[in-house]
Amino acid sequence: MPRTAETASFKFNHTMIRVKDPQASLKFYTEILGMDLVAENKFETFTLYFLAFDNGTPTTPENRFQREGILELTHNHGTESDPNFAGYANGNSDPGRGFGHIAITVDDVEAACARFEKLGVKFQKKLTDGKMKHIAFILDPDGYWVEVLPGSFKPQ
Amino acid sequence: MPRTAETASFKFNHTMIRVKDPQASLKFYTEILGMDLVAENKFETFTLYFLAFDNGTPTTPENRFQREGILELTHNHGTESDPNFAGYANGNSDPGRGFGHIAITVDDVEAACARFEKLGVKFQKKLTDGKMKHIAFILDPDGYWVEVLPGSFKPQ
Repeated sequence: MPRTAETASFKFNHTMIRVKDPQASLKFYTEILGMDLVAENKFETFTLYFLAFDNGTPTTPENRFQREGILELTHNHGTESDPNFAGYANGNSDPGRGFGHIAITVDDVEAACARFEKLGVKFQKKLTDGKMKHIAFILDPDGYWVEVLPGSFKPQ
Repeated sequence: MPRTAETASFKFNHTMIRVKDPQASLKFYTEILGMDLVAENKFETFTLYFLAFDNGTPTTPENRFQREGILELTHNHGTESDPNFAGYANGNSDPGRGFGHIAITVDDVEAACARFEKLGVKFQKKLTDGKMKHIAFILDPDGYWVEVLPGSFKPQ
């Protein structure tokens, strides 16, 4: 649908989630999922990490707000080593139910999930669990759900 | 950074959040933010709504998993009229802290926010609040934070 002039420039640039330990999260999102760390902004009490999949146009700290599909991780300094920090809610159970998941589409979901298993990734739902055999859910280091499904999937 | 073959096809396709009242949410995301409803999948106890900004290539129910920047809204039937339903956590306060926000980038953030005000949108942070004068946060019907910032923003 054509957009009105007032919203014609709008883009869904990013999704932000808080993470306990940035080293664990960066390893997961870059090494296991293959995103690039495109910018890092350190403030006094927190650091923001911006990640994205390479889409052919280089994403830089300067142009990162001009595309879609960015993931922003917020690290509040100290949570990674605070024995009293209980961790973040992943949004899928009470209390805290609301946010559900992020989703990664892939060409070959069987190969992607086989690789995740080999790399020791935790699954919320394997391809073989339940009725929907083309969809898996893996867990990031904070327990956030990451859906994995084929980009070619055509539901009814 | 070039990706390995194993993750070369991966895309950050969508972010899912639960919504209490789909009519209110669809009005907000389509009429106020300008997204298109690109697919709707009704199941016995819930309905999924997929929204996206028009990026020049038509997004259809069939190809919606082949791009980035999709927002998925999950409506568990009945929440909109259940007096005992307390609403969803927006992720930004305890209990339930974790998810932070989604962010929309725009060409003219002053004009965008002036229009939101005119349309009666609730603000978590107006442009004039606090130190960061180029960033606003508006609230969707469930209270999820939606950051609004210029696509041309170049932080340090």
